[in-house]
Amino acid sequence: MTPLELRHKVRSGEFRLPTSGYCGPYAQANLVILPQAHADEFLLFCQRNPRSCPLLAVGEPGQWNVPRLGADMDLRSDVPGYNVYRGGQLASQTHALHDVWRDDLVVFAIGCSFSFEQMLIEAGIKLRHIEQRRNVAMYRTSIRNQAAGPFGGEMVVSMRPMKAADAIRAIQITSRYPAVHGAPVHLGDPALIGIADIARPEYGDPVEIMPDEIPVFWACGVTPQEALRHARLPLVITHQPGYMLVTDILNSSLAAF
Amino acid sequence: MTPLELRHKVRSGEFRLPTSGYCGPYAQANLVILPQAHADEFLLFCQRNPRSCPLLAVGEPGQWNVPRLGADMDLRSDVPGYNVYRGGQLASQTHALHDVWRDDLVVFAIGCSFSFEQMLIEAGIKLRHIEQRRNVAMYRTSIRNQAAGPFGGEMVVSMRPMKAADAIRAIQITSRYPAVHGAPVHLGDPALIGIADIARPEYGDPVEIMPDEIPVFWACGVTPQEALRHARLPLVITHQPGYMLVTDILNSSLAAF
Repeated sequence: MTPLELRHKVRSGEFRLPTSGYCGPYAQANLVILPQAHADEFLLFCQRNPRSCPLLAVGEPGQWNVPRLGADMDLRSDVPGYNVYRGGQLASQTHALHDVWRDDLVVFAIGCSFSFEQMLIEAGIKLRHIEQRRNVAMYRTSIRNQAAGPFGGEMVVSMRPMKAADAIRAIQITSRYPAVHGAPVHLGDPALIGIADIARPEYGDPVEIMPDEIPVFWACGVTPQEALRHARLPLVITHQPGYMLVTDILNSSLAAF
Repeated sequence: MTPLELRHKVRSGEFRLPTSGYCGPYAQANLVILPQAHADEFLLFCQRNPRSCPLLAVGEPGQWNVPRLGADMDLRSDVPGYNVYRGGQLASQTHALHDVWRDDLVVFAIGCSFSFEQMLIEAGIKLRHIEQRRNVAMYRTSIRNQAAGPFGGEMVVSMRPMKAADAIRAIQITSRYPAVHGAPVHLGDPALIGIADIARPEYGDPVEIMPDEIPVFWACGVTPQEALRHARLPLVITHQPGYMLVTDILNSSLAAF
């Protein structure tokens, strides 16, 4: 199934599943849609926090078809699930945005760890949460975001346990992909970045760390979602966690070197 | 002072110091000189263990001037101190090899960690052993070398303690320089690579690891020296530790990407 075929199935309602594991060679994206009045400050927040908020594309006001992301795209219906927030609270969950769409809405597509996980797996690095068919473990940290306007807060990270040699290789591989979170932000002692209990992630599922492994932490796309929620804007739309936008962008094309 | 000027001072006997800190932008090299009869197997050993034995150049039999390494070079006199081993035992220490030179001797120049340390320092990463004017801490490990002929044994590693963010950056930087040991081979728990007591290095000086730091381990040029000693060849000549060959090769020219 090509990304275009998948998007068509989503649009028609035929596909309503989490997108993990589909169209592996292609980048999936976190989606943030918000009114133009807040778009400049959110763009600045992304620019200042590129590890958490690597931008694949930003649309024009009202533009629900961002050609940079893929052909024949309708961002009002091509994601299998949307969350609509009003005043920082989840107001509704929907499969299509035609009712809430406005001409001043701006689309932000933010790179997703699925892309670099694909590259790690292709390099022979096993990822336990994928082998155990769980969600990755994610944690709030004490790493302060660089604030912009109403957006601030702390970085959320995802954690993958690895043997040291794999961790070194994973740093090499993910460093090539700054557009999908890039290199890890931390490894080793979780307490050094404010994680009190590694067995209790704030998001996702806990994953075991073996005695010969080290936890490796990447900046996570949940960071902007938390920043958006705390900003309590009148309207923000995001994808539902795990129900991503599947783009026509090849992961391999995102390599910086 | 250019590398050529330094080599001329060494040749004339005017310079008899460790070479660390001189001609910083230029690569310094570990030197191994051995009879042609053993050269092919040692070359194979280096090929099979590139992290420990990254070859900058290999001369022809009898050739004491390897142009790849620098202009107007005389490898019989351009290193401030040589060790001459016979049957695996240190037989003499000398400043010139004219008396022991033979037409069947082959020169191997092996990349040195000074090169990547220079790159780390330029990137703003502090190296405690350099700040404390100590030798780097080096350890025997349980990592088996790939054997070739009489050459085998285990990898020797150097250790530098760093904060996690610096360790990640150091992996990125040193990955660019496979000709000077490249990326680390391990980080974190020393016991996982057979190091029983991190406070007692087998070579060099101990260096403190702070609570917010992680030990990072690189393959070390002492590895081939140990393999050579254990092979008990009739004749092997090396530089004296710290008294390196200063080449005309710019460290920056060694970047693989």
